[in-house]
Amino acid sequence: MSAEKPMSGSAEDRLIARYFAPLATHAGALGLQDDAALLTPPPGCDLVLTKDALVAGVHFFADDAPDAVARKALRVNLSDLAAKGAKPEGFLLALALPTDVAEVWLENFARGLGADAEAYGCPLLGGDTVKTPGPLMVSITAFGSVPSGTMIKRSGAKAGDRVFVTGSIGDAALGLKLRNDPDAAARWKLDRAQADHLLDRYLLPRPRNALAQALRAHASAAMDVSDGLAGDFTKLCRVSGVSAQIDVARVPLSDAAKAALAAEPALIETILGGGDDYEIVCTMEERAGKEFRAAATAAGVDVTEIGRVTAGEGTPRFLGGDGGALSLGQASFSHF
Amino acid sequence: MSAEKPMSGSAEDRLIARYFAPLATHAGALGLQDDAALLTPPPGCDLVLTKDALVAGVHFFADDAPDAVARKALRVNLSDLAAKGAKPEGFLLALALPTDVAEVWLENFARGLGADAEAYGCPLLGGDTVKTPGPLMVSITAFGSVPSGTMIKRSGAKAGDRVFVTGSIGDAALGLKLRNDPDAAARWKLDRAQADHLLDRYLLPRPRNALAQALRAHASAAMDVSDGLAGDFTKLCRVSGVSAQIDVARVPLSDAAKAALAAEPALIETILGGGDDYEIVCTMEERAGKEFRAAATAAGVDVTEIGRVTAGEGTPRFLGGDGGALSLGQASFSHF
Repeated sequence: MSAEKPMSGSAEDRLIARYFAPLATHAGALGLQDDAALLTPPPGCDLVLTKDALVAGVHFFADDAPDAVARKALRVNLSDLAAKGAKPEGFLLALALPTDVAEVWLENFARGLGADAEAYGCPLLGGDTVKTPGPLMVSITAFGSVPSGTMIKRSGAKAGDRVFVTGSIGDAALGLKLRNDPDAAARWKLDRAQADHLLDRYLLPRPRNALAQALRAHASAAMDVSDGLAGDFTKLCRVSGVSAQIDVARVPLSDAAKAALAAEPALIETILGGGDDYEIVCTMEERAGKEFRAAATAAGVDVTEIGRVTAGEGTPRFLGGDGGALSLGQASFSHF
Repeated sequence: MSAEKPMSGSAEDRLIARYFAPLATHAGALGLQDDAALLTPPPGCDLVLTKDALVAGVHFFADDAPDAVARKALRVNLSDLAAKGAKPEGFLLALALPTDVAEVWLENFARGLGADAEAYGCPLLGGDTVKTPGPLMVSITAFGSVPSGTMIKRSGAKAGDRVFVTGSIGDAALGLKLRNDPDAAARWKLDRAQADHLLDRYLLPRPRNALAQALRAHASAAMDVSDGLAGDFTKLCRVSGVSAQIDVARVPLSDAAKAALAAEPALIETILGGGDDYEIVCTMEERAGKEFRAAATAAGVDVTEIGRVTAGEGTPRFLGGDGGALSLGQASFSHF
């Protein structure tokens, strides 16, 4: 083994100048020509920081389209900002590249990244590009701002609060199953459009940044659903010191997920326990619900009430159609 | 191939709670129990952002002591903050772990990280832990603060400015050579202490954060020397639109580097062109030199004047003892 230098100054500089400098539209990025970037939150605002890393073969498929990889890497971070009620301000990118990565891959990666940076108002501020003998890895740190003291935490849920979730749950986890086992489409009796919907939801998250302001105005607690609704909402309940009852029949499902579930009822575990939803689960006082719904509609984001927070600490109960609690195994969790 | 979930919620949470939560002493870290962290720069200050990633087998040896890996990963980022004149405020950590990483490795990694976080006043704010089928990778984003508008950029060097460098140059690059070729110690006629000095300088950078305030007070431009003095200072000259003359005989060398260079004069290329110095090169008006030296002495950091900035754009000239310019090849740069 030799521990050689990461990537030559000149080669790294050339890549950065060609593909990434055009994305560094923020003055604080200093044209990517300095050791560091500058960011000053708007007056009276806190900066919200989040960092999510994606590894080829773990969080995405090595043969995924490079623009989709870039967009997913940015969007999973944007989803954290959305859940915290924060307005995106910019991001830093660390990219570990295998030596055999093609320049056209980088070109398309940068194109996808630039498209989303512009769409979400979240410009590139800086970063680092290194070589790796392993799989490609993208590590993004994203920055958002909230008026001081208004970041929505996980820890604010109170007994009696209602539980809401955005969009639809389970699509991405089903899409991943389908990606690994294309024959499942026939077993689940999906038409082509339904299968494509699930595959696409795995490939490309839809972060709910349009909902940030409504969350700040109404939510007592919120988090993004990235590791499965059941597990993630359990975390929220634990740090809030509460429990909850979730009405499984009210958890919003896409037509595709409904079809798959009808064909294979055991998929409820994948739907509730799988990951990559990048939806938001939040809680709020009952009386806030009406205005929150109206604000969500105005923002173009579907929200659905799925249950209520209860007193006492413990794993939230997911109630089936018969009123009994589902036993959600840990099958969907890989253990470290 | 299967694209499975990163690391189970429960296993990741357990690792974080046991090893990393104790390092999250900053209120904005929210005990590592939220999607995001909060950071508000001190009133009247800009936030300085930097991000450096390290890959096992590329930036450090896979069998390096885990506490040294952690400290190096944090210190290379602290070095960027130092060069910008910024006070460390905190950092985010992304850790990609091979499945076979031992828990004792993580325990020692966290111990080293915690020791440096405390020593440099730079607490853990948050991060992400994922699995990788590849080599271990550490990606750190560090935050510092400077009074608004006072960050030292690379682009401020002016013709007539003097060039200073901290500490000693070339030790880490020689240490890396020695690590890959232990017989070199005999060829270079190094005693044990000298060889250990070089090896240690590669293993563990000494970021010059104590110099931050003196740089803000006096420097016109600065950067940290991570990819070799020759290449890095060339970058500084380019973005400043100037050239420079560096007197090679004045470049500060350790006793070990002097001994190696005496035995093998061609090592001057490694010394000036190798990487991992994590010293600071800076420029300032001639009249600022005296006060800067005094401030550096007070901060306990050695600084040496090595040349002067000249008008005209171009690669700085590194002048040998005979007054002729050294031809510094690109041998030390790996090409991407």
